[in-house]
Amino acid sequence: MPTPADGEVLLRHDWLGLAPAARLRMSEAGSYSAPTALGEVVYGQAIGTVLESRHPDFAPGDMVMSMRAGWQCFSTAAGDQLNRIDPALAPPPVWLGALGTSGLAAYIGLLDLGQPIAGETVVVSAAAGAVGSVVGQIARIKGCRVVGIAGGTDKCRVAVEEFGYDACVDHRSPTLADDLARACPQGIDVSFENAGGVSRDAAWASMAQGGRVVVCGLIAEYNDPQIAGPGWYTLLTRRLTVRGYITSDHIHRRDAFIADMSGWWRQGRIRMRQDVSVGLESAPAAFIGMLQGHNQGKVLVKL
Amino acid sequence: MPTPADGEVLLRHDWLGLAPAARLRMSEAGSYSAPTALGEVVYGQAIGTVLESRHPDFAPGDMVMSMRAGWQCFSTAAGDQLNRIDPALAPPPVWLGALGTSGLAAYIGLLDLGQPIAGETVVVSAAAGAVGSVVGQIARIKGCRVVGIAGGTDKCRVAVEEFGYDACVDHRSPTLADDLARACPQGIDVSFENAGGVSRDAAWASMAQGGRVVVCGLIAEYNDPQIAGPGWYTLLTRRLTVRGYITSDHIHRRDAFIADMSGWWRQGRIRMRQDVSVGLESAPAAFIGMLQGHNQGKVLVKL
Repeated sequence: MPTPADGEVLLRHDWLGLAPAARLRMSEAGSYSAPTALGEVVYGQAIGTVLESRHPDFAPGDMVMSMRAGWQCFSTAAGDQLNRIDPALAPPPVWLGALGTSGLAAYIGLLDLGQPIAGETVVVSAAAGAVGSVVGQIARIKGCRVVGIAGGTDKCRVAVEEFGYDACVDHRSPTLADDLARACPQGIDVSFENAGGVSRDAAWASMAQGGRVVVCGLIAEYNDPQIAGPGWYTLLTRRLTVRGYITSDHIHRRDAFIADMSGWWRQGRIRMRQDVSVGLESAPAAFIGMLQGHNQGKVLVKL
Repeated sequence: MPTPADGEVLLRHDWLGLAPAARLRMSEAGSYSAPTALGEVVYGQAIGTVLESRHPDFAPGDMVMSMRAGWQCFSTAAGDQLNRIDPALAPPPVWLGALGTSGLAAYIGLLDLGQPIAGETVVVSAAAGAVGSVVGQIARIKGCRVVGIAGGTDKCRVAVEEFGYDACVDHRSPTLADDLARACPQGIDVSFENAGGVSRDAAWASMAQGGRVVVCGLIAEYNDPQIAGPGWYTLLTRRLTVRGYITSDHIHRRDAFIADMSGWWRQGRIRMRQDVSVGLESAPAAFIGMLQGHNQGKVLVKL
């Protein structure tokens, strides 16, 4: 059991949130953070309960979200690195999903970088996933036509029926590019990229003049960082903007995010699916399953 | 001889400016404007003298720049589509180059889209060309480290000696990517892309975290719009922004451009190379030579 230093608290982890971003650290290809070393704790967020506090803002029993809790049952953390959560507003798992880093990634990527205008067409890959489902729902709230790309008819149905997409196409379809083009007769103004690979290529072919592509994740490409991208002729002639981003660069937007998202949550305008497994030992299989697309919504581990 | 309608003027073209952008219209691949039809006049800018005016702001003898003059000796144009030029500030060819659309493309792309900060590293492909040479000089004025990519040792020498680049690497070198990486020890903050192909791939490999890629042209790829682009793993993990643009979308910035650029021109801080051929019949060969990289600076046809 770790011991908190001055300014730190000791946390018991109640829920772990698994996210594809951790995959980027499991590689020597280089990313925005140092690779996780062999023997190190795997990176990840958790909702935890304060057991012991040496920080004036926290007392035993407080519930918090820790960005760098890791795949373990207890951790110590500096108090000023923690976000207090309000279980009266939404249950703890939601603070790892729609009201957590998944929701924040969706909010920043869509609104700050994608800058959709009411009436525009927004396409979201991994449309029913933890980030994608929030992107789709915010885009609807903002008055856009929202088209999803997801793996399989089940996920496409969930995207439309639960998350309010106007349409959703299956990325396994051999006619994916044509399917997507038909679902976006005015072209795509904002493409929110979670997947890469065939989803990205299909969206690229239908981008509208002045379109914005927001690159949040490339889950289909993490096993092969050498996969080529689409040609730049289209980028030039359609005046596209393509932006890769990391949520932590935009953390100053968290207050605005929480204000907006908690309002939408209270109004019932945001839904969230959870894919829960139990016990720390279930994390690796749940993580691999998520990277293979077997999950439905936010992947959580109940400890 | 065409006849000006009400609000139009009749122009005699004194100089044509050739630009790679016209190549995009000589294709059925689709771009931001309709392809030039067989038998149509080729798109291009000209400096002309007003012969006859039916617009209150212009009188015979005035010198103007016409964006859509075309490869011909005379044209009519709406007066409000013309930009008056000041031959006392700079000779007419400069108004097609550093003070014309080439300079405007450089100014908007570098400053508005690339947003370089003093001390950052800016890389420019086609570094000694009509647009690239202006980009390099503005980047120097803004206090950046400026590294060029150009075809051959002659152009590299011109880039450094005439245009003030800190270094310039030859895109024909078999070790281009390594040469460029060595010339940019801090990585590339802004890559100004005129060329595409191997220059683009070399720059991509050295982009710094948070880097911006401004795509002004892809001269190396116009004969094959299907050329693949670089993978998006780097785009995501280095949080890059890639923007394709068309100068005409930013035409509201022309007044600021003329104010800044004419000041720099007067102070001798901007130089320009001209590659002049004579007679309308010389235009096709000059145009093809430019697309093959045989020119040195702005390609002009003296009529």
